[in-house]
Amino acid sequence: MLRIDQNRLWNRLMTMAEIGRSSKGGVCRVALTEEDRQGRDLFIKWCEAAACSIEVDPMGNIFARRAGIDHNLPAIMIGSHLDSQPTGGKFDGVYGVLAGLEVIECLNDHQIKTRHPIEIVSWTNEEGARFTPAMIGSGVFAGAFSIDYAYSRTDKEGKTLGEELIKIGYRGKSPLGQRAYKATFELHIEQGPILEAEGKSVGVVTGVQGIHWYDLILTGKETHAGPSPMSYRVDPVRAAIPLLQEIYELADTYAPHAKVTVGYLDASPGVKNTVPGQLKISLDFRHPDAEILERMDRDLKTQIAKQAQNTEVQFKLEDIWYSPPVEFDKDCIAAVQQAVDLLQIPAKKMVSGAGHDAVYLAGYAPTSMIFIPCEDGLSHNELENAAPADVEAGANVLLHAALSLAQQMD
Amino acid sequence: MLRIDQNRLWNRLMTMAEIGRSSKGGVCRVALTEEDRQGRDLFIKWCEAAACSIEVDPMGNIFARRAGIDHNLPAIMIGSHLDSQPTGGKFDGVYGVLAGLEVIECLNDHQIKTRHPIEIVSWTNEEGARFTPAMIGSGVFAGAFSIDYAYSRTDKEGKTLGEELIKIGYRGKSPLGQRAYKATFELHIEQGPILEAEGKSVGVVTGVQGIHWYDLILTGKETHAGPSPMSYRVDPVRAAIPLLQEIYELADTYAPHAKVTVGYLDASPGVKNTVPGQLKISLDFRHPDAEILERMDRDLKTQIAKQAQNTEVQFKLEDIWYSPPVEFDKDCIAAVQQAVDLLQIPAKKMVSGAGHDAVYLAGYAPTSMIFIPCEDGLSHNELENAAPADVEAGANVLLHAALSLAQQMD
Repeated sequence: MLRIDQNRLWNRLMTMAEIGRSSKGGVCRVALTEEDRQGRDLFIKWCEAAACSIEVDPMGNIFARRAGIDHNLPAIMIGSHLDSQPTGGKFDGVYGVLAGLEVIECLNDHQIKTRHPIEIVSWTNEEGARFTPAMIGSGVFAGAFSIDYAYSRTDKEGKTLGEELIKIGYRGKSPLGQRAYKATFELHIEQGPILEAEGKSVGVVTGVQGIHWYDLILTGKETHAGPSPMSYRVDPVRAAIPLLQEIYELADTYAPHAKVTVGYLDASPGVKNTVPGQLKISLDFRHPDAEILERMDRDLKTQIAKQAQNTEVQFKLEDIWYSPPVEFDKDCIAAVQQAVDLLQIPAKKMVSGAGHDAVYLAGYAPTSMIFIPCEDGLSHNELENAAPADVEAGANVLLHAALSLAQQMD
Repeated sequence: MLRIDQNRLWNRLMTMAEIGRSSKGGVCRVALTEEDRQGRDLFIKWCEAAACSIEVDPMGNIFARRAGIDHNLPAIMIGSHLDSQPTGGKFDGVYGVLAGLEVIECLNDHQIKTRHPIEIVSWTNEEGARFTPAMIGSGVFAGAFSIDYAYSRTDKEGKTLGEELIKIGYRGKSPLGQRAYKATFELHIEQGPILEAEGKSVGVVTGVQGIHWYDLILTGKETHAGPSPMSYRVDPVRAAIPLLQEIYELADTYAPHAKVTVGYLDASPGVKNTVPGQLKISLDFRHPDAEILERMDRDLKTQIAKQAQNTEVQFKLEDIWYSPPVEFDKDCIAAVQQAVDLLQIPAKKMVSGAGHDAVYLAGYAPTSMIFIPCEDGLSHNELENAAPADVEAGANVLLHAALSLAQQMD
């Protein structure tokens, strides 16, 4: 049976991980930095060596195409991203891109021609660590955001996404969107503990949970810590404590699938002997059921209104981003399941906890995802790790799922 | 009766406030920055024009001396600081320094010779906003810290205090310490709401409350916000909430004089979709009674031990700085009270809520402080403000308190 070359794939993953490599063995290859540019250049070099044609669109998304027998047929797309978190790992995103390239290399090695073209895509700024919202490259491609909105996004230093794209030389000319796909697949590490805990090598992903991002800004009165009696203070940090308690309890109320994360906190001016004038907090709410995610949203607003009655601190909630729960395409899921059965790999049907570029692609073309386990469920972490056997299993499932649809007579 | 020139003092305060002036009318003249250098240069220019001799010690402390009739007698010192918080005001510190200069100008104007010399001091890095601990310039002078310890202190960017002193040209050669003072006075805005609330123009300060600084570091497991079920997480932010609740309640337990401030919070890596691996929090505890401050310290450690039982998050408490409560010198307090009575100014005896350079000086020479009200009790804030009439009253009290001791026959 046809199988990918695990050594080639693994070696490329390790070579790519040298770009932005951190002292703890992780990767810092944040979107539109010099490291991102180097990663993109290396990927394109490899794709060209595999006889792919390259296009770059105005969002910096990279398309590497292996021609099909019939040029007029829609392609099978395999996509993910090369950017990482600031303290990210060696597999998140890059695995899905390089496994796509490995599928093409494997077909080249065996001189297999497919009816439909096969296309690998690397999407810009999936992580959202530098420019929010996350997945903006696939989002603009699929029509969820305008290109002008994307270009105007700024990082913490005020640099815009549009300018930074030009700076690294990846603001391309290929028409935005307007590409026809018969199916799209994204192969990714699970980034959670479930497959490992259940001893499965592959997850057949049927959908993605919904995500709601907020910024919560509490404004009080900045004053010297020493002489100001407690009763005179308007302290946003103290006011945040009972509210945060209630916010975390939303995860218990809607357990086991609800998730609540406070990833960012910033008290300003942020010095030991000053009662902060302002506290900024990020909120990340997730649930696979849109109705419950909406209930969490209502409960959050109720709690803020309730807490605001007890204090002079001003609460301001900003709605940053909402990504509704997604159900993937039945035919794509079936192709992945057939590949799993064919290869006799221990697998499990599951819902993705994280957002992925596949979320936006699902609104554009038939789409599904494939997961493999990662050690301790750790991701967005320099210690992120995946077993070579699982990396191989996932890429073989991708190969057969993509190949079966690429050869299909419509 | 002899009185200072309020216009000259006020104009100098406003001129100095132009250095590091912020858009909101405050000041950013943080220790050992270019702005700090400019402020020091201007102060020295004014002192030299007032016929003072200048010395700078290896900590960058500036001594401006007006000779006395008898050069062998110990000086009357008037000291405070020129550095500010990052979002500080126009009066904190600088008022005490420029009022000292105004006392000398007034004596010059009236050709009054004093038995004892009079010396104005500007202490380095009082605020502690850039380099901790605060008041390190006066602390090293008075023997509380070694000069090597001070030089090794780093700011957030890793720059050392020692190098930054050289960079601004203020690592002087005058011998450290070894200066004899008959008395030292520090005139300062109250930085609290009490004098204003009670309609007093001057506070006769009898001591300073104790201060205890800590860094609390909570270490969990950095992981992706999406796929990690709540029950698998080791989240330092969530673990901090019940502990912070208990910490703030210490202020209620030991009300009304206990003060608890969380001025700095930092979750790392600090991105929306990552459960933070670490949370750093600063704690500032204050109380005028050393025994109660010690009880707060014990309660804090008990609470941390208790909270640590409920979570896999690791808690680490670092003792950063302890400044015990201080009682000022009876003769200095009496000199201030006599000046208040002579000038018939509405005044109140009180304890300082904030730490000041006078805390270290009190262990070195007879010392006390004088306060004036500030608007709304606001300080460490760009909106910090003081009424011209109070600024004048405080400087006149300083003049007569200093003069009475400077002329005293020992």
